[in-house]
Amino acid sequence: MSAHTPTTTPGNLADHEALAARRLDAATWAYFNGGAADETTLRANVQAWQQLKLASRVLRPLAGGHTRVRLLGRTLTHPLLVAPMAHQRLAHPDGERATALAAAALGAGLVLSTQASTPLEDVARLVLSDADRGPLWFQLYLQPDRGFTRDLVQRAEAAGYEALVLTVDAPVSGVRDRERRAGFALPPGVSAVNLQGLHTPPAAVLQPGQSALFDNLLTRAPTWADIAWLRSVTRLPVLLKGITHPADARLAMEHGAAGVIVSNHGGRTLDTLPPTAELLPAVVQAVDGALPVLVDGGIRRGTDVLKAMALGASAVLVGRPVLHGLANGGAEGVAHVLRLLRDELEIAMALCGCRQLSDAASVLHQPTRT
Amino acid sequence: MSAHTPTTTPGNLADHEALAARRLDAATWAYFNGGAADETTLRANVQAWQQLKLASRVLRPLAGGHTRVRLLGRTLTHPLLVAPMAHQRLAHPDGERATALAAAALGAGLVLSTQASTPLEDVARLVLSDADRGPLWFQLYLQPDRGFTRDLVQRAEAAGYEALVLTVDAPVSGVRDRERRAGFALPPGVSAVNLQGLHTPPAAVLQPGQSALFDNLLTRAPTWADIAWLRSVTRLPVLLKGITHPADARLAMEHGAAGVIVSNHGGRTLDTLPPTAELLPAVVQAVDGALPVLVDGGIRRGTDVLKAMALGASAVLVGRPVLHGLANGGAEGVAHVLRLLRDELEIAMALCGCRQLSDAASVLHQPTRT
Amino acid sequence: MSAHTPTTTPGNLADHEALAARRLDAATWAYFNGGAADETTLRANVQAWQQLKLASRVLRPLAGGHTRVRLLGRTLTHPLLVAPMAHQRLAHPDGERATALAAAALGAGLVLSTQASTPLEDVARLVLSDADRGPLWFQLYLQPDRGFTRDLVQRAEAAGYEALVLTVDAPVSGVRDRERRAGFALPPGVSAVNLQGLHTPPAAVLQPGQSALFDNLLTRAPTWADIAWLRSVTRLPVLLKGITHPADARLAMEHGAAGVIVSNHGGRTLDTLPPTAELLPAVVQAVDGALPVLVDGGIRRGTDVLKAMALGASAVLVGRPVLHGLANGGAEGVAHVLRLLRDELEIAMALCGCRQLSDAASVLHQPTRT
Amino acid sequence: MSAHTPTTTPGNLADHEALAARRLDAATWAYFNGGAADETTLRANVQAWQQLKLASRVLRPLAGGHTRVRLLGRTLTHPLLVAPMAHQRLAHPDGERATALAAAALGAGLVLSTQASTPLEDVARLVLSDADRGPLWFQLYLQPDRGFTRDLVQRAEAAGYEALVLTVDAPVSGVRDRERRAGFALPPGVSAVNLQGLHTPPAAVLQPGQSALFDNLLTRAPTWADIAWLRSVTRLPVLLKGITHPADARLAMEHGAAGVIVSNHGGRTLDTLPPTAELLPAVVQAVDGALPVLVDGGIRRGTDVLKAMALGASAVLVGRPVLHGLANGGAEGVAHVLRLLRDELEIAMALCGCRQLSDAASVLHQPTRT
Repeated sequence: MSAHTPTTTPGNLADHEALAARRLDAATWAYFNGGAADETTLRANVQAWQQLKLASRVLRPLAGGHTRVRLLGRTLTHPLLVAPMAHQRLAHPDGERATALAAAALGAGLVLSTQASTPLEDVARLVLSDADRGPLWFQLYLQPDRGFTRDLVQRAEAAGYEALVLTVDAPVSGVRDRERRAGFALPPGVSAVNLQGLHTPPAAVLQPGQSALFDNLLTRAPTWADIAWLRSVTRLPVLLKGITHPADARLAMEHGAAGVIVSNHGGRTLDTLPPTAELLPAVVQAVDGALPVLVDGGIRRGTDVLKAMALGASAVLVGRPVLHGLANGGAEGVAHVLRLLRDELEIAMALCGCRQLSDAASVLHQPTRT
Repeated sequence: MSAHTPTTTPGNLADHEALAARRLDAATWAYFNGGAADETTLRANVQAWQQLKLASRVLRPLAGGHTRVRLLGRTLTHPLLVAPMAHQRLAHPDGERATALAAAALGAGLVLSTQASTPLEDVARLVLSDADRGPLWFQLYLQPDRGFTRDLVQRAEAAGYEALVLTVDAPVSGVRDRERRAGFALPPGVSAVNLQGLHTPPAAVLQPGQSALFDNLLTRAPTWADIAWLRSVTRLPVLLKGITHPADARLAMEHGAAGVIVSNHGGRTLDTLPPTAELLPAVVQAVDGALPVLVDGGIRRGTDVLKAMALGASAVLVGRPVLHGLANGGAEGVAHVLRLLRDELEIAMALCGCRQLSDAASVLHQPTRT
Repeated sequence: MSAHTPTTTPGNLADHEALAARRLDAATWAYFNGGAADETTLRANVQAWQQLKLASRVLRPLAGGHTRVRLLGRTLTHPLLVAPMAHQRLAHPDGERATALAAAALGAGLVLSTQASTPLEDVARLVLSDADRGPLWFQLYLQPDRGFTRDLVQRAEAAGYEALVLTVDAPVSGVRDRERRAGFALPPGVSAVNLQGLHTPPAAVLQPGQSALFDNLLTRAPTWADIAWLRSVTRLPVLLKGITHPADARLAMEHGAAGVIVSNHGGRTLDTLPPTAELLPAVVQAVDGALPVLVDGGIRRGTDVLKAMALGASAVLVGRPVLHGLANGGAEGVAHVLRLLRDELEIAMALCGCRQLSDAASVLHQPTRT
Repeated sequence: MSAHTPTTTPGNLADHEALAARRLDAATWAYFNGGAADETTLRANVQAWQQLKLASRVLRPLAGGHTRVRLLGRTLTHPLLVAPMAHQRLAHPDGERATALAAAALGAGLVLSTQASTPLEDVARLVLSDADRGPLWFQLYLQPDRGFTRDLVQRAEAAGYEALVLTVDAPVSGVRDRERRAGFALPPGVSAVNLQGLHTPPAAVLQPGQSALFDNLLTRAPTWADIAWLRSVTRLPVLLKGITHPADARLAMEHGAAGVIVSNHGGRTLDTLPPTAELLPAVVQAVDGALPVLVDGGIRRGTDVLKAMALGASAVLVGRPVLHGLANGGAEGVAHVLRLLRDELEIAMALCGCRQLSDAASVLHQPTRT
């Protein structure tokens, strides 16, 4: 594994990103780090957290402070979860196994992608016995092949996954220009092993003037009505990932979702969506405490995590930085990334005079209107 | 035609632009891609669409969605038209013929420039029989030589053009600094063939202190009164191109225009005009549904088209990108550009949860006031 | 004079600037083109005009339009004046003579600097007989040596100057870092010939803790009370240059000024003053038509001139671009610069549908509040 | 000392910075000039002063103007103090001695860092006898070792320091990425000599799930209750440095502080805190004249000092520029930096028509709402 040992010591997530950019081949890098179209949303996600300003309070008692949060009935050591990301064996031979071990060791939650390059049961087996681990969730899409979807859900349930994360913001793939330009293709030996056997329906026969998208693929796109079906085939709570509109957050509540994840798919689907830091407050307001609201997209600093909590997030998902750590050092690299984020979070809390995240609302600077 | 076969495969309109910049000589490139003066309007046109943010709705039924729009009594497969652009044989030997064939094949409308380098009848003959083609319109200026103008209008009418697009925003040419610096001049073999025989009046004899512009050229500039004359010599509907002010949109209605095109001439006439994305809403509001309002300027993505429709456009004209496609691959290149735009439009609609363009108004993100 | 013949043909004021930067030595360039401190005001002057957006109206009658304005009882062909600038023989051997001849030939006004490198009588003699010339004004500072100041004023009056422009915004010199870094010093043969014989009072003897500025130089700085004195020694109208605050504009009226010039001294005195485009409207409002309000700073395009007029200016002074033209081609270069500006102004008027400058108020785009 | 003689003559603080960057080794430079994390606050501090715009008034009487201010019962020649900065012998062998001598000679105040590399008594001895010197203050942290803290306070008191500056915004160190990347470490011979003998408590034994920060280091962080203790062991006035929130400013008053210093620690602790120019007004408003409010962070020009005074500061602390002067020329370099700032301040006052700093409130430009 010497080829995966970092040669310089990264000290923050930007260092990890720069190092990973040098370690991964150009096409894989484009696949992991690229976004949709002109990547304005991709960049905005990062900038929006950075542009929020903090307010600092001084000389407050800080002893006994902590980063603990409550989420779906559990107390977590801190609010960090690993976002679902496909094909992690592209980043490191140990792939999802390394990510899962590191997350468990650091008390972070893990959301396994339905397009993982490792059997979901193997991942669960590695971490379920860890007493200090965070939540273990399984991400999926509602595939047109309902039998397969039901079987997949039941496999995840049997393997010990504690919740389902249904991705609802990608009825079609985005325009991934960077990835296309780089000519990315999955190499031999890396595949979506948990989707083997999935039946893809034949393309519809189109009449002249019909749309290959609307009159074919999208005829099978999931709708709100399908949420009831999914809940009927599982006893697991279902979170909806990709909610950006307050009206959809209310619909999620009405349809029995156990939580929502404010996400623009890391800027990978529809370019010029607003950054999630801008979308989060309206969703928090719409849900009004009835459901947990998580958020992902652009989190690169402990201050970003603190700001997300200040805006009302219940927890925060981190994606690309975990892949960077994975590329740089396997489980050790992932652990380092999560450690850096948590350390920075504690430092930010202390410097804001914030002893616990339930007090985070006051850490944002409110500009004076003049 | 091997010299016109792209060597790398463009995958979006920016790729086409970059490729065309390498294929065309510098002076032609300056003529096609340049704008007026410091090109602030030219750049702003592109940026303004990009800066509008989309709102995404999820899990809505998308089956049977489509991109169809109604325009001047016809149903079009999609809202894309090719903007009028002069001298297309500079970009490719097939010139306007290639553009017209590609537009027809893709169901896009075509507005032929009065300064086309191909006889207007030849263009019409190529596409009129195509059942799936979009509208075929003819663009013109009101020339001081009224006899010539009437004859030209009647030629267009006889040839089968379905509407006239009168450009009203260029009583004088703009300050085309980039073009001047590059030393652009029309090469032998490319000329405004449809304007042969046009009589240019002799320059006025000026008194001391008179202006070469106001006391000469502009004494013959068209006014609102001339719209009635134009309508009197044709049975075709007349759209006014270059309307940017809501008061002028109301005047267009009062003078019997069949539609208006919000345009700043692609940033080629008066620099520091606002981008059309900023001008469109007030014109739409002024017209209040009584006339179709089209828009051009800076459209480079399917998301841009969707945003234009969200702001109330009835259809969208695309200019320079068509020239880029033409330079890169003749009819095939133009078809590729139009195909990319339409595909991106459908993907953007699906990802916004928008099944038809008449629902587009809700796809724009409204920032929360805090 | 071959060394002063441009080798490439400039087609706008930016071209002239680039060309002049290559022709002049670095120290002279720093002196002419530099500003105070970090040059934020210098840059902002140019950008502020550019950022104002125009509104275009179409199909209006334009015949017989003109650029004429009324100023201090005269009708001028157009609203351009050459701003007072010192030591023009640094730019070209013909110095102020060339500038004056070109201004007169183009009908532009001329404000001769008190620090001109040419005798004021010589300049007046060259142009007074030109029937089409613009106004001829003389700029001065109130020097502590009142006898000299009175004599200077009476020389200007005798020579035929038609107004005095008193610069009021420079009781001390600004922090001219660029000029200092470049090591600028006047070469032999160039000097403020009109100030020969000026008596400079000896420095005050300071007590410990006293300020070399406030307790010495500034004890002799002019005040409002001195305006009455100046008016008592001349029959010429007195304009105050360097007014930026509406309260000072009102004081100017109360003290009998014949006009005010909104100026931040071309960004050469106090850095972080707002650009003049931002300062002009409040001064226009304060004066409310009782006095002409002129403006300078950052005018580089005909559109800038039109915008200044739209904001209520009575006329516009142009500085550095005239020096660029002078450096590039003597009188011919200055004439070219003034010609370009006037041509661009006419084109901008035509494209805005503005037939005369008294209608300019409506050419500014008013963003819609949404 | 020839190695410390500047080879080019700096003429403003930016010149000093550029020169010092070349003279100091990269790690020391990173330590002195770096900030926390992504350095957004570091950059914003400088930009925020620069972006405030000045308003100029003309022809006002300026004779007898001055820069004097009242602070804690004394009249100071001008409002500049040297901010507390550690380890100044890294910049120059003469270290704090040179800084102190220069400050005294220029009438500037001096705040000695508790982490000075020179005995506090030596510094006091050098300057106390200078009749024209500014205030001499001692900065400290409340260390867990209370006995040591009390002794240190009493040493400072005995040595002649006139006030204590308690830094309250750094219960933990910031994330100093630039410094870490550069591998900075104190060289032999430079140390915090005044902290010799300080007892560091042993790390707590943590239970699983406990935080190394909140359950260890921060258990000993000072709180408001400790202000009373500090005041009980000294007769010196105590100013609190690092106040950014108006509520904390009110608490400072309630706890008997003699003044507050609005500071974000020069952007070295918590990144994305707002710049101090943005924080100052709300603190000034909260304190409402009951206490002096000082400010530091990003002051690089005399105009910045004037703007700080306009926003209600009683005096201004300058940090890094003093280190740059020190590196460039020892005491002479520091004196030059302070001289430049004061000269620029006087020029800015004169050009704004501001005769004394108590009139500074009106020098800020108020943008017109349109």
